Amino acid sequence: MSAINTYIQNNFGRFTDELLELLRIPSVSADSKHNEDTARCAEAVKLALSKAGCSHVEICPTDGHPIVYAEKIIDPNLPTILTYGHYDVQPPDPLDLWTSGPFDPVIKDGKIYARGSCDDKGQVFMHVKALETMLATNSLPCNIKYMIEGEEEVGSSNLGTFLEKNKEKLKADIVLVSDTSMISMDTPSIETGLRGLAYMEVEVTGPNRDLHSGVYGGAVANPITILAQMIASLHDENNHITVKGFYDDVLNLTSQEREDLNKAPFSLEQYKKDLNVTEVWGEKGYTTLERTGVRPTLELNGIWGGYTGEGAKTVLPSKASAKISMRLVPHQNSIKIAELFTKHFESIAPPYIKVNVTELHGGEPVVTPTDGLAYRAAAMAIEEAFGKKPIPTRGGGSIPIVALFEKILGLKTVLMGFGLDSDNIHSPNEHYGLFNFQKGIETIPLFCKNFTKLNQTS
Amino acid sequence: MSAINTYIQNNFGRFTDELLELLRIPSVSADSKHNEDTARCAEAVKLALSKAGCSHVEICPTDGHPIVYAEKIIDPNLPTILTYGHYDVQPPDPLDLWTSGPFDPVIKDGKIYARGSCDDKGQVFMHVKALETMLATNSLPCNIKYMIEGEEEVGSSNLGTFLEKNKEKLKADIVLVSDTSMISMDTPSIETGLRGLAYMEVEVTGPNRDLHSGVYGGAVANPITILAQMIASLHDENNHITVKGFYDDVLNLTSQEREDLNKAPFSLEQYKKDLNVTEVWGEKGYTTLERTGVRPTLELNGIWGGYTGEGAKTVLPSKASAKISMRLVPHQNSIKIAELFTKHFESIAPPYIKVNVTELHGGEPVVTPTDGLAYRAAAMAIEEAFGKKPIPTRGGGSIPIVALFEKILGLKTVLMGFGLDSDNIHSPNEHYGLFNFQKGIETIPLFCKNFTKLNQTS
Repeated sequence: MSAINTYIQNNFGRFTDELLELLRIPSVSADSKHNEDTARCAEAVKLALSKAGCSHVEICPTDGHPIVYAEKIIDPNLPTILTYGHYDVQPPDPLDLWTSGPFDPVIKDGKIYARGSCDDKGQVFMHVKALETMLATNSLPCNIKYMIEGEEEVGSSNLGTFLEKNKEKLKADIVLVSDTSMISMDTPSIETGLRGLAYMEVEVTGPNRDLHSGVYGGAVANPITILAQMIASLHDENNHITVKGFYDDVLNLTSQEREDLNKAPFSLEQYKKDLNVTEVWGEKGYTTLERTGVRPTLELNGIWGGYTGEGAKTVLPSKASAKISMRLVPHQNSIKIAELFTKHFESIAPPYIKVNVTELHGGEPVVTPTDGLAYRAAAMAIEEAFGKKPIPTRGGGSIPIVALFEKILGLKTVLMGFGLDSDNIHSPNEHYGLFNFQKGIETIPLFCKNFTKLNQTS
Repeated sequence: MSAINTYIQNNFGRFTDELLELLRIPSVSADSKHNEDTARCAEAVKLALSKAGCSHVEICPTDGHPIVYAEKIIDPNLPTILTYGHYDVQPPDPLDLWTSGPFDPVIKDGKIYARGSCDDKGQVFMHVKALETMLATNSLPCNIKYMIEGEEEVGSSNLGTFLEKNKEKLKADIVLVSDTSMISMDTPSIETGLRGLAYMEVEVTGPNRDLHSGVYGGAVANPITILAQMIASLHDENNHITVKGFYDDVLNLTSQEREDLNKAPFSLEQYKKDLNVTEVWGEKGYTTLERTGVRPTLELNGIWGGYTGEGAKTVLPSKASAKISMRLVPHQNSIKIAELFTKHFESIAPPYIKVNVTELHGGEPVVTPTDGLAYRAAAMAIEEAFGKKPIPTRGGGSIPIVALFEKILGLKTVLMGFGLDSDNIHSPNEHYGLFNFQKGIETIPLFCKNFTKLNQTS
């Protein structure tokens, strides 16, 4: 066994305990009630990077939540890896569906249950512990920089400015991100594409005040009814999205590419069973893997209006609202899509109501290269750690920052993530396998070694 | 000036103060958090009736909130009026739209602002103070019984049983109810019809847990999207309700009846301006007065699902729900309509989701006679108090109990209400004019006098 793996085994209990400490901080970036917690979490990440051996650590304020920056430079002539991750988490609700507190981490059946355990504190912490391990075993082969932000779950809106202002500080050869998932621990994979995102909030206003539904019902447009009609019209009978111009820029795959994509191991029966649905749903003419990987989507993330408490209230409400997000594929652009959506939604509004459309955040789709040194270094590292060559896949999620790295810093990204789709990220009972956590800490030093070697021999 | 009116004027400040005390009790029947308040309110009503001079007062427990019963019997040979009202109120939310606390009554511009000020505590209290006045001025001409319930806003579900069990105690010649409104204080009116109600809650379930909308979006039916589509299909392009069989039993009016109904003073421009809408909405082929008075309706009272907090959460929720109520007209039946709705809603559910439909409460439509002694007594009383003959109108609201009075007790009802449509009942900033409150206290003794006289001479 390598010195690295021995060190990890000998210290894995402590690594896990330290991660649990981090998971206890409710760093919910979307909820301003948690602003202090989020700031506290940034301090905890800074301290962890400092203890792991970084030569420089700092908290960089932004207009929103701060960014933690750290570095360990051992030789300016060696390659530099910029590790990106985020310490903020999704809101934990609905709370009643959690079997243990979202911020009271517990270990059950070899998994850590807590909000952020996988997305992304657990995966960030693998990088912290990999650095400690490499330094403790005298095996750090390159320079590493860390940029751990606190606004990934709310659209990374201040990161572009940070990148622009810190181009020199962030100079590197590659960006390494662990914020994605693998097919399974038996079928390791690397995501090579991420969808973009345009996240909108819509508000429909009917009468100027809540009304008695007996006195006014049937005579004044009900904003819930009208909002439902407008939402219903956003997909046609084939579940194509009806927003005018929505598909104009979509990059269509060749039949060969579609064939390759559908080769990934996938059981529709297992998928339906896991979700307890009798039928899947989606855009006509595409498989489930295509629908989630390479096709754009429009989803309702939330809806509210009128009386939602216990019992019956006979109200005809003044307003109804919804959160609607669209996942974008290459070469769609989030700004253009947000504009098309706004125009479309306003155009379908009937004259007896008013609509207000706001963009909450956006991010661009990306495809990461599979032919570069970094992808090869990651594929070799995973093969060495897992004993199997990884499969390239297209992920359905979005990490808006990946497109920005290329645009502002001119850097390519490798998405070497160790989560699983079944980890319930963004859901109650999010969890992360101790096995995944350990494999990640083992694989990162191998990536550093391979990436350095390939750079030196290329 | 009559002795009655003098007494009212001399004591009106105290009457108002006593009403404000009653309005401070948050007797929200729909919310079990307020069960103690609701019970306390029943005690306050009992005490007020006792102080007003009732010879017998009691609190009658039910399986839900209690009923306050009281009586003042002066001579078994005289006619008996059974006064019905309710001490429970609608939930006050949305709280942020109130300009003063819903349970901190204030008097502004001659109106009392508080939840329940008009519906129905303010109107109930007119009857209490009318009794005090008649006794103080030695002018009570008949027997009066009071049945003030605490579940009107949640469907009066225990009142039928109470009526069945207390037929003897509740024996009377007429039921008098003040829980409706007039066209205006310049155009007094009496409601002669009330719509029935079938109030449903629906829940749509897609996947068995909340999912990441990036990972699963586009491939699994989103319960919000499907619920919106189902809601959208409940009205056709003419805003007719599509529930199969819904209109089968509807009593259609003759052209003469429609013509009479549309003679009521009504300004569409004023109506739109008051609600700040540029266009009204409703069933094609009917006027606004017909839509709210004699046609059945289907309204969304509430909707919720997914993430409804601040900011963006990329969730594909497991469930979405809505509260949907239907107003019924003669001869529709609430049990049949609830069944038709349930069957219809289940039938339009696509195979990739599950639906659950629950009936929250129901009540039957009624038409009250305009040719009986009681209507004549009320019309004469209003003419005497207001100086103008009242216009008969059809109300859009529902008081389910009115149909039960006829069915169980064999009693007709007179709806002598003193509210206004603009009183914001069921809405933020509910209010009740001091003028209306005073006119009510003046009119009730006149009704008692007229009803007794007409009975004795008929």
